[in-house]
Amino acid sequence: MQIGVVAPSSRFGAEAAERVSALAAAEFPEAEIVFHNQCFLTHNHFAGPDAARADALVEFANDPAFDAIWFARGGYGACRIAEGAIARLNDAAREKTFFGYSDAGYLLAGLQRAGFPHLAHGPMPQDIMRDGGDAAIRRALGWLIRRDAAALEGGLEKGRRHAAFNLTVLGLLLGTPLEPHLAGHVLMIEDVSEHMYATDRAMYHLTASANIRSAAGIRLGRIGDVLPNDPDFGEDGEAVVRYWCERAGISFLGLADIGHDSGNKVVPFDLL
Amino acid sequence: MQIGVVAPSSRFGAEAAERVSALAAAEFPEAEIVFHNQCFLTHNHFAGPDAARADALVEFANDPAFDAIWFARGGYGACRIAEGAIARLNDAAREKTFFGYSDAGYLLAGLQRAGFPHLAHGPMPQDIMRDGGDAAIRRALGWLIRRDAAALEGGLEKGRRHAAFNLTVLGLLLGTPLEPHLAGHVLMIEDVSEHMYATDRAMYHLTASANIRSAAGIRLGRIGDVLPNDPDFGEDGEAVVRYWCERAGISFLGLADIGHDSGNKVVPFDLL
Repeated sequence: MQIGVVAPSSRFGAEAAERVSALAAAEFPEAEIVFHNQCFLTHNHFAGPDAARADALVEFANDPAFDAIWFARGGYGACRIAEGAIARLNDAAREKTFFGYSDAGYLLAGLQRAGFPHLAHGPMPQDIMRDGGDAAIRRALGWLIRRDAAALEGGLEKGRRHAAFNLTVLGLLLGTPLEPHLAGHVLMIEDVSEHMYATDRAMYHLTASANIRSAAGIRLGRIGDVLPNDPDFGEDGEAVVRYWCERAGISFLGLADIGHDSGNKVVPFDLL
Repeated sequence: MQIGVVAPSSRFGAEAAERVSALAAAEFPEAEIVFHNQCFLTHNHFAGPDAARADALVEFANDPAFDAIWFARGGYGACRIAEGAIARLNDAAREKTFFGYSDAGYLLAGLQRAGFPHLAHGPMPQDIMRDGGDAAIRRALGWLIRRDAAALEGGLEKGRRHAAFNLTVLGLLLGTPLEPHLAGHVLMIEDVSEHMYATDRAMYHLTASANIRSAAGIRLGRIGDVLPNDPDFGEDGEAVVRYWCERAGISFLGLADIGHDSGNKVVPFDLL
């Protein structure tokens, strides 16, 4: 099995690639992880210019030799190339799994809308740099290579479709050609490094959407590294998300074991 | 003439009220500035609980004794009360001017959508606390009380409708019941205290909107207090806004003299 890694968003580093390759060689010898050279390009904020990031994604996604496309990291930048790249994908791309989270959510969203059937939200190569990051990578590879059920988020429901996104990313793709179809889905959201007022503001916007309201409900992953709110916001992420769900008539379905951390579990978008 | 001040968003302070009242008494003796007691309430992040903020706005807006409603400050919180409060406004409210910017943009937007004819984007009482803030307050009162043309943004076009919003606020009200009608309008945007990648991300979202694309074009106010981007984003706000306007087929109409600073000029939404 071959997994192709491309970096559609922020700069990625060689150290993370080396550590992921070493872990994979030691523990998943049946698979080969191929980092596209584009992963190591830099252009300002990004892992290379827009054209290079788009071309690398299209090249690996369209190559029948790869079974899965693994996004190297988040940060920012996928929205600049997602529409154009997705329009260039072929039938071979449609067969494979696309895997990532955070800013890669722009691609997962657009691919879901375009009917790509094999998408999943879970750890990315850059996560190996976190404390406990080896476990995150082991989980991602365990699912990508062996469909290890232990890697899965614990509350997934058989017979349901799921989707998982960063709250800020999901809000900022509503109304764009990347907006996924969420009717009937269990929608999981998480966020990181935002002020709590910004999470409240994002929930106003999110829960006003008819598409979001058509979901089976929302489960809340971790809201990590909350930035200081002066004065204190007085409510935590769960209270904020519950408030807006209730106000909008969306079922709040509890917490979800996802987030910007090494405990981030895998959420396949396929029908379970 | 009576101007009623209410605080639909973040906590507001007595010092700003006192300084604005003193300036107004000295320089605009023909007008009375009335700060609703709600302005001095606090509830966590907000200038009082949602119900108190909504009730104060409705009370003053519906009172024929007031000629204008001036929002005390931005911050965050107006989206929590805007829909409900606007639904309770009467014909007396429809006659008067509503004035503010930043988070008050949620109210300007919802009022514009609801057909309120007299709205304007400009400095708020809290701005007196800025360096040079007296000039901002003088400008706001000069326009509110005397329709002083010197207070106006210099590039307003006769025969055109204009609208001005904080970029982040405008993006996060697209698709909500507060979304204004922007077809044919000259749309001005400004922002503050965001990373440049977040401005780029916000522009992707904004320029995907058919409503935004129906505007006559976009003029860019100041993008102030840009937070550090690591690595450097490599493009400034004007380059970012030009890029997304060009990509979306929206006319970029140049810079605008608005922003989160004491130089913020007045932009009436009325037909000039």
